Amino acid sequence: MLGRYYESQNCSAARALEVVGERWSLLIIRDALFRGMTRFTDFQRSLRLAPNILAARLDSFVRAGLMEQRSQAGRPGQPEYVLTEKGHDLAPVIIALTAWGDKWAAPQGPPVTFHHQACGGTITQQTACRGCGELLPPEAVVTRPGPGAQAA
Amino acid sequence: MLGRYYESQNCSAARALEVVGERWSLLIIRDALFRGMTRFTDFQRSLRLAPNILAARLDSFVRAGLMEQRSQAGRPGQPEYVLTEKGHDLAPVIIALTAWGDKWAAPQGPPVTFHHQACGGTITQQTACRGCGELLPPEAVVTRPGPGAQAA
Repeated sequence: MLGRYYESQNCSAARALEVVGERWSLLIIRDALFRGMTRFTDFQRSLRLAPNILAARLDSFVRAGLMEQRSQAGRPGQPEYVLTEKGHDLAPVIIALTAWGDKWAAPQGPPVTFHHQACGGTITQQTACRGCGELLPPEAVVTRPGPGAQAA
Repeated sequence: MLGRYYESQNCSAARALEVVGERWSLLIIRDALFRGMTRFTDFQRSLRLAPNILAARLDSFVRAGLMEQRSQAGRPGQPEYVLTEKGHDLAPVIIALTAWGDKWAAPQGPPVTFHHQACGGTITQQTACRGCGELLPPEAVVTRPGPGAQAA
């Protein structure tokens, strides 16, 4: 999708961006995840995006397995786009982007806040160590080559 | 930076993508955060990116306050690009993208793994409730209008 050097990056963040790094992609996923949208017309109303671009993004999500296309009863030719598990798994990316934007790009306060459905408490995203259980600041995190480091 | 409707989205995820949503941006930040890169030539070697594009991205990061430009002793005209706190705060976004790519786009296993510097344990990102302390799956998270919801 992006340039060939981009694709050649043996890095899971780069591969994730290959799938969801195009302009608008993560905002479509945001609307599906946190606003419950499934219909072309709803995405279009929310994002005011050219129909051909929106259609191309939704088609690419279906091809990439992020969404499934389902026919709506009584509305032939107007399918719904429903997130798969692979699509749902992007929630932490959206929450992390939103937390950054809330801190650094929301002078009037967060436009939207995330809450625990059961108790109403606000949400926080934590980086934790599976070994010792400690919550970590980014400076405490280092990287190492993983099992896929030698892949093409 | 992106389209005007994109900018008009009153959403912290959209505003974050305005700053770091251009192609390559998050991979440059990744190299700075987790590979300790600060020099133009190192970013270029890592990303094999056209110099004019790399220069434009680094300049935009300096303007946006994600990086500071510092002169290198003995290397006039070859500044270093050093992440600020605002830039460092993107670590959870990169870790979340990488976790998604590790799960869904790394058939040969993660190319890189994240570890706790002190104990070597692997890292996990978790969504938690500040109210009850529970760790939450994405389905348990709902959104509400926040203090900045009425902003332009």
